Amino acid sequence: MPSDIDIAQQATLKHITDIAARLGLSDESVIPYGRYKAKIDLDANPQLQAHPDGKLILVTAISPTPAGEGKTTTTVGLGDALQRLGKRAVICLREPSMGPVFGMKGGAAGGGYAQVVPMEDINLHFTGDFAAIALAHNLLAAMIDNHIHHGNALQIDPRQVTWKRVMDMNDRALRQVVIGLGGKVNGQPREDGFDIVVASEVMAVFCLADSLHDLRERLGNIVIGYSLNGHPVTARDLKAHGAMAVLLKDAIKPNLVQTLEHTPALLHGGPFANIAHGCNSVIATRAALKLGEIVITEAGFGADLGAEKFIDIKCRKAGLKPDACVIVATIRALKYHGGQEISALSQENLQALALGIANLEKHLENVTQQYGLPAVVALNRFDHDTAAELALLTERMARRGVEVVLAEHWAKGSAGAEKLAKSVLSLVESAQAQMRYVYADADSLWEKLGKVARNIYGAVEVHAPRRVRAMIDKLQTDGYGHYPVCIAKTQYSFSTDASQRGLPHEHILTVRAVRLCAGAEFVVMICDDIMTMPGLPKEPCATRIDIDDEGRVTGLY
Amino acid sequence: MPSDIDIAQQATLKHITDIAARLGLSDESVIPYGRYKAKIDLDANPQLQAHPDGKLILVTAISPTPAGEGKTTTTVGLGDALQRLGKRAVICLREPSMGPVFGMKGGAAGGGYAQVVPMEDINLHFTGDFAAIALAHNLLAAMIDNHIHHGNALQIDPRQVTWKRVMDMNDRALRQVVIGLGGKVNGQPREDGFDIVVASEVMAVFCLADSLHDLRERLGNIVIGYSLNGHPVTARDLKAHGAMAVLLKDAIKPNLVQTLEHTPALLHGGPFANIAHGCNSVIATRAALKLGEIVITEAGFGADLGAEKFIDIKCRKAGLKPDACVIVATIRALKYHGGQEISALSQENLQALALGIANLEKHLENVTQQYGLPAVVALNRFDHDTAAELALLTERMARRGVEVVLAEHWAKGSAGAEKLAKSVLSLVESAQAQMRYVYADADSLWEKLGKVARNIYGAVEVHAPRRVRAMIDKLQTDGYGHYPVCIAKTQYSFSTDASQRGLPHEHILTVRAVRLCAGAEFVVMICDDIMTMPGLPKEPCATRIDIDDEGRVTGLY
Repeated sequence: MPSDIDIAQQATLKHITDIAARLGLSDESVIPYGRYKAKIDLDANPQLQAHPDGKLILVTAISPTPAGEGKTTTTVGLGDALQRLGKRAVICLREPSMGPVFGMKGGAAGGGYAQVVPMEDINLHFTGDFAAIALAHNLLAAMIDNHIHHGNALQIDPRQVTWKRVMDMNDRALRQVVIGLGGKVNGQPREDGFDIVVASEVMAVFCLADSLHDLRERLGNIVIGYSLNGHPVTARDLKAHGAMAVLLKDAIKPNLVQTLEHTPALLHGGPFANIAHGCNSVIATRAALKLGEIVITEAGFGADLGAEKFIDIKCRKAGLKPDACVIVATIRALKYHGGQEISALSQENLQALALGIANLEKHLENVTQQYGLPAVVALNRFDHDTAAELALLTERMARRGVEVVLAEHWAKGSAGAEKLAKSVLSLVESAQAQMRYVYADADSLWEKLGKVARNIYGAVEVHAPRRVRAMIDKLQTDGYGHYPVCIAKTQYSFSTDASQRGLPHEHILTVRAVRLCAGAEFVVMICDDIMTMPGLPKEPCATRIDIDDEGRVTGLY
Repeated sequence: MPSDIDIAQQATLKHITDIAARLGLSDESVIPYGRYKAKIDLDANPQLQAHPDGKLILVTAISPTPAGEGKTTTTVGLGDALQRLGKRAVICLREPSMGPVFGMKGGAAGGGYAQVVPMEDINLHFTGDFAAIALAHNLLAAMIDNHIHHGNALQIDPRQVTWKRVMDMNDRALRQVVIGLGGKVNGQPREDGFDIVVASEVMAVFCLADSLHDLRERLGNIVIGYSLNGHPVTARDLKAHGAMAVLLKDAIKPNLVQTLEHTPALLHGGPFANIAHGCNSVIATRAALKLGEIVITEAGFGADLGAEKFIDIKCRKAGLKPDACVIVATIRALKYHGGQEISALSQENLQALALGIANLEKHLENVTQQYGLPAVVALNRFDHDTAAELALLTERMARRGVEVVLAEHWAKGSAGAEKLAKSVLSLVESAQAQMRYVYADADSLWEKLGKVARNIYGAVEVHAPRRVRAMIDKLQTDGYGHYPVCIAKTQYSFSTDASQRGLPHEHILTVRAVRLCAGAEFVVMICDDIMTMPGLPKEPCATRIDIDDEGRVTGLY
């Protein structure tokens, strides 16, 4: 198999206006960024609002493993296969962050013959959305320190500024810094830190706003810290939200690209799935539903994290209701969940597989019983998967009335996902979906936390140190009790211990910190040391990424 | 008069492919960014290389004052007027930095009826070049600290890392910081700081590179600091230059926009005119010369700084030769140079004017005698300029055989600059230009410094503390003696004392620090406290910038 970038570079792309035309979008509504990327001006298509909504498919996965599952690849392959079956399919994905591109993980535009293209552009600056989000975030940060420097009329407590700075880079040295050194002209020294852009609350706000107006309001609501007498200080207090919205005025328009097979894909926004909700923008998903007969989207990490937040945060805010769910798994990853070592994943091990399937079963139970969505398991096929392993998995799923479909889009493109597409269509046609939230708006923050912990993670108890419990109660009494909770915990386990693969039992969820995101309108419950600024590995991908004199990029993946 | 943004928003723009077509550019070579901005793919127009070069006009000015002179406005107005006279004119400008847009100064896209548009886009993210430059710069920074963290094989001395980080923001709190705090996982603590993006050496490299190949080589040559045993460490040593070039692969293509009167304008790059050379990119200027009959460009600050660097750095590297020079002045600014207070600039004061004209005369002498370029003075007209004042200036200039042309493009567009355009054309036709460098490549760094100080600034002596003198000598013996010097000093005076307006006498140039820019290929001689990260004022422009629900931006200027 050629490499992802080789496949992407050899592809013949259609002009982006042709892709837009397939969706019935007028040329006036296409704002080109080069020939193969565009932003869509939805205001230029007011008739869209009268369109009926298409069907919505959520692609999620088992708990992630180092073996890789291929969720984005499946989302792309499924979209291509639905198009192959004559459906007007639209794919909705997050935009990749550049941090991992230059670090270890690489890009996030699918892989093999199931990619969105132009791959290099998507994995690099794309249409500048992340740069705009970074600047909007950092403008607010600069205005905070500037306000303190020029007399501090709002009496901001420099010790209680919670708004950090951001950069779209894996840069561990910026995690914890002291700023404002060098004397009076450089302002007030204080502790600060940088997060990666995808961890910015501006990113979450961007992805949950349903209009430019809503975006500006939410930006104004952002709490940047506390005054000396304990009152929250907002971006609106600093008069920063207007300029922040101006910085985001183009970014907020969804980006249109295509797959290798010319299926339209809207890539827009990319919040973390731990301290934020891990889905592409509401604006893009809503637009896709108006433009397509069937929309395929994904949520970050496994179905305990991404899918739960997709439903309890995004669907709740945006009034969305998925019609079916695809759970992505691999035999390799299930064996890893069953205790098999990484080095031995190519060997048949029915015992490890049998154990590991428990992880899939719990996710499946969550999706079908808790979220109320019909589901199919998409098994990304590897050469060394044995017939006995496949039979075991199929049999275990059949007991629950769930189909396992072998997916080979990575090697074969749409043809390899045709069976999966047919299975998804039959789920949609069955009209079984009765989407349910895990908790009600009216539940208290503590009750919401408990329902997710017990019902989704399978925890037996929820703990919080007294100080944290007091903060949760204070947020409740301060009027934030109706917000959803956004639980930040490791994606590698149902528990808060990343080493507990498979289906951990008797585990306790401990909340270590709480963060109010009044712009995004959720309360983050932090259970682990959540990394909001990754580091680079010893040999970063960046050392292998290069360009020749003709502009051909190598080393991206 | 309506505000700049009102004029810009009411303008009817032509589609950017129409502007490109006027220049003979094929559709294939136009990479649109929306409807009114594009990047030009010069490789798609190989026939261009055979075109004869157009004429090159440099717009420069007297020493800047708080009264404002209108250099960019004149560059735009002159371009429009030349087009009005039937010439295929192309304007070359720097891209604005967002720092001043949200700070105090505002944007940099001209003003009144002499603007480049779309004004909001140009003053905000434009085509993402500055974001790309910032990321390329910060990737290198992250790779430095990452290298030190992972064993430091190159033995980089953390105390001698000279490569800072950058942000396109006025953020004084980031000038001086300590990074890497929080223990072992966050790396090695060390002192660091942030510059604004326009002060990045990557910006200077970007503007001096003549190809993608040259860009990559120069990025590799950047010295990021010194090893424990005193050897320079380069970006190439860190294997960062390939990925940095990848980040810049689109940015390096010049940006095409139009004026209010549809004259093509290439806006590309924007280095500081103090610690860098203050001109738009070599690639854009060369392209403009192939595309236009006459190219109008500007250099930062007054003719002592920007024009000197334009000639001694940019023209030298790129083999350019201007055909004529426009020196922009206002009666107000000349009176300020003559000692008149700001509050009284609207009152006639022939005595102050007579004194202040000495500033213009010295710049004129530099341009004509030192740089060897024929010149005209463009006087941006204000209502309260009196007939006696205009007569005095005209008479003083006539003594030197130099014409003063009243320019009214700000209020009247191209019609207001038609006289100026005719004057420029007659200078070009006279073919008097015999461009000379201020110093030769073979002069030592110290000699180069002395020639600029004495011949251009009018200094009587050049001083440097022993330590600085030793560093200059070391650079000379280390093989950097053939580089041009880039003198960083206040733009407000010929001397290093910003308060010495007009024509200071008997002043001494003292060099306080030296910086090797091995990527940009010049040696910076720092004479003052050069501000490489501005701060925001008490009431930043950002607090007045806003957007309505329909996306109309207000408060930008």
